[in-house]
Amino acid sequence: MPTFSQSHPMSGGDDQHSYIHNSSYQKAAIDVVEEKTKQYILEKLDLLNLNPDLSTFTIADYGCSIGPNTFHAVQNIIEAVKLKHLKESQENSLVPLEFQVCFSDQPSNDFNTLFRTLPPSFRQEYFSVGVPGSFYGRVLPRNSIHIGNTSFTTHWLSKVPEQVLDKKSPAWKKHYIHCNDSIEAVTNAFMVQYTKDMSLFLKARAEELVSGGLMIVLGFCLPDGVAMYETWPGIVKDAISDCLQDMATLGITTHEKIDMFSLPLYFPQFSEMKRVIEQNESFTIELMETVSHPLEAVKLSDNFITSMYRALLSIFIEKHFGIGEVDELFNRLAKKLSDHPIDFEKCKKQMVYYVVLKKK
Amino acid sequence: MPTFSQSHPMSGGDDQHSYIHNSSYQKAAIDVVEEKTKQYILEKLDLLNLNPDLSTFTIADYGCSIGPNTFHAVQNIIEAVKLKHLKESQENSLVPLEFQVCFSDQPSNDFNTLFRTLPPSFRQEYFSVGVPGSFYGRVLPRNSIHIGNTSFTTHWLSKVPEQVLDKKSPAWKKHYIHCNDSIEAVTNAFMVQYTKDMSLFLKARAEELVSGGLMIVLGFCLPDGVAMYETWPGIVKDAISDCLQDMATLGITTHEKIDMFSLPLYFPQFSEMKRVIEQNESFTIELMETVSHPLEAVKLSDNFITSMYRALLSIFIEKHFGIGEVDELFNRLAKKLSDHPIDFEKCKKQMVYYVVLKKK
Repeated sequence: MPTFSQSHPMSGGDDQHSYIHNSSYQKAAIDVVEEKTKQYILEKLDLLNLNPDLSTFTIADYGCSIGPNTFHAVQNIIEAVKLKHLKESQENSLVPLEFQVCFSDQPSNDFNTLFRTLPPSFRQEYFSVGVPGSFYGRVLPRNSIHIGNTSFTTHWLSKVPEQVLDKKSPAWKKHYIHCNDSIEAVTNAFMVQYTKDMSLFLKARAEELVSGGLMIVLGFCLPDGVAMYETWPGIVKDAISDCLQDMATLGITTHEKIDMFSLPLYFPQFSEMKRVIEQNESFTIELMETVSHPLEAVKLSDNFITSMYRALLSIFIEKHFGIGEVDELFNRLAKKLSDHPIDFEKCKKQMVYYVVLKKK
Repeated sequence: MPTFSQSHPMSGGDDQHSYIHNSSYQKAAIDVVEEKTKQYILEKLDLLNLNPDLSTFTIADYGCSIGPNTFHAVQNIIEAVKLKHLKESQENSLVPLEFQVCFSDQPSNDFNTLFRTLPPSFRQEYFSVGVPGSFYGRVLPRNSIHIGNTSFTTHWLSKVPEQVLDKKSPAWKKHYIHCNDSIEAVTNAFMVQYTKDMSLFLKARAEELVSGGLMIVLGFCLPDGVAMYETWPGIVKDAISDCLQDMATLGITTHEKIDMFSLPLYFPQFSEMKRVIEQNESFTIELMETVSHPLEAVKLSDNFITSMYRALLSIFIEKHFGIGEVDELFNRLAKKLSDHPIDFEKCKKQMVYYVVLKKK
């Protein structure tokens, strides 16, 4: 039943450093695909075929974190299903629908904050449940979900591949703290892990979704041939590597600690993502598109970048380097970004992909 | 959809003052009825009639708090259903069962601790979800639960009746902080609220349970004619009232604050509980028994009592009187109990009731 992988939630609570207040970059992309999701549901979701006696429509957001993005995403889906249900009810006699939303994330996710910040609308519109567990395994009963959603989550792997942290391996990461594509063997190790994880993700969802149910996957990838270190998020993480090296040189942390540290992050190239999805046999691919990130052309401020990466990474940093190193590191990052501004025009672009799968 | 009432969770976390470490009194009574529940399920639960194609068996624990009692209660139910399923599968071809457990409590319950302390067995045996909301309203979709359970929860009312805190009302509580049955009009006000709340509880469960599903209710009540102030729990709460009065006299708190404070607690007399359950039209009464509390004849230590009441009440005390008053109050309670030991032999006994209802 539920499996657990390395746990890496976003920063909980709702203070200035929390994910709640530092997730607008992700939100901007969610906004872009909302209309596409709505259109798809209105045109293609087959409520009659799902079950004409259906009385509860169940939606799961996998890797929900603590909001507000998850609330927007599920609200959008609910509105579309309601409209579709209203339309179909005029022609067929359908049972009135109740909605249930399963907010799923690692057991260490801050569910208390999630529940405390549920939007008032949920009291009228849906029943909420929190579902603890890693989405690389089953977290919900079979045939229980009508629409699954995941937004910007599957680049978080279940773990860092072992050889990446093994100094004797040709796939050793050296001083880098993420897969920046500068060492081919490291990239391969991450890619293998990503492929395995993504297959497990789809296998688990295939069991949880009802036949005819939809799985919406929104995520970041790289255009084929683009290396992570050529993009601004790659440059920021390399800058974080550099700050850690500076801290080791000053004795604030140690090189040995950095050697043992890597983020379990992998941004696949578009064709890698496409391949793993095409290889699954449980879903048909209804839509597979790339969309422009609305902030793609915007020069992000140093503050915005520092706050965003702090919310994403501080739990990892704290766990590995100690609680005191978080402030130190992100203060250094802010200074480094200010001393050496990122030239956004020269950076290559990440891509946002949007996939809608239908359970066979 | 989900409704919220005054929120009053048990103490969260897992430190020495937490409910986790101070719920053994409740656990002792849960142990007593475990065997009864198991027997009832084995003999009477009609799996075929519930749904021969049933693939997920869903259990809800209403007012679960943070464990470990909730884990014991659901594990016991699961084991019994598994046995029953195995037995029936030999005669009929039943689909293998997956189990889902809905742990439900107020949104302010410490779900993070609940999820963190899920017993290892759950990974193999059931899918867990946390369900935030007041059980005096709907918290789950209709027809979604096969067995509901609630242990020692429904004496927590949705609110303190208004007139009890109104100095001009004949039902004013005076200096007491709970319904100790010394003022008839106060008792009546609480009884009316209890009846209303319990009806709402049963109405909501009737919608959530499938036809043929079971609702198990375990709770405390008073034998007919016994007043709360004659029982040791009544005496303890009156001692807490007295400690607060002492603190007001010393200027640590104020009499005005005490005037505005009452616990939303009501322990019905057995016949009151029986009446409200008999009046519901959605369930048949399968079992209604009283059981002896295994610690009934035991002289509880002052430490045990103080710790138990601290875990139950500290969130109320903190919210109304301030965080600093919790230590002060319970230190005083310990001293008062030591100076004036409770004469357990002279106390009248509370009762533990055990009810199994079947949804029509």
